[in-house]
Amino acid sequence: MKEGKVIKWRDIDPEIINTQEIKGVHKRVVIGENEGAQNFILRVFTVAGGGHSPKHSHPWEHEVFVLRGEGQVLLGEDLINISEGHAVFVPENLEHQFLNASKNEEFEFICVIPKGGM
Amino acid sequence: MKEGKVIKWRDIDPEIINTQEIKGVHKRVVIGENEGAQNFILRVFTVAGGGHSPKHSHPWEHEVFVLRGEGQVLLGEDLINISEGHAVFVPENLEHQFLNASKNEEFEFICVIPKGGM
Repeated sequence: MKEGKVIKWRDIDPEIINTQEIKGVHKRVVIGENEGAQNFILRVFTVAGGGHSPKHSHPWEHEVFVLRGEGQVLLGEDLINISEGHAVFVPENLEHQFLNASKNEEFEFICVIPKGGM
Repeated sequence: MKEGKVIKWRDIDPEIINTQEIKGVHKRVVIGENEGAQNFILRVFTVAGGGHSPKHSHPWEHEVFVLRGEGQVLLGEDLINISEGHAVFVPENLEHQFLNASKNEEFEFICVIPKGGM
């Protein structure tokens, strides 16, 4: 039988992502295939002040839960303010982007995807 | 195309569960089939002081992320203290239980399951 696992997620070394389309993003895969997850993957993204995820769409969904900070989410053509207390459902194939609305404070959220997504 | 959705999850009326096996549990389905989720469901559980989820196992996994409070998780025969900063992977078919370790303070966590689980 697989073992259960307790993870101290802040101790995970983040993947730091800065490209033309992604700015100031620290990505931690908290529960993924290494832990035995077969169906969906739980990640935490920490976005530096002024940073953002790519503006894109893909054939899988996101389930997002804001942990802290002041952000914005682009859902199609709607740009919506989000902060602690908000969750976001991004359906498959909808263009979306997550942005830190602050210049100085971090914006942090959970993003769950099906296995095989990114 | 499905629409994206921003959810103020604390505004969701919780299902309040008190049975022989479950004590002091408030359950909110934050992102589920009503939002268009096809593959996995994101719920938040708020457990009153001294409360707990059932001790059970089932053929689907849990991906858990602690939001606040002082809790314990039973994973097979191991009882482990958990609090903010911890995530827990419960594999399929492993006996488990979540308990609030405090008598007075709430213990709150996210629990993601595949569609069709509970």
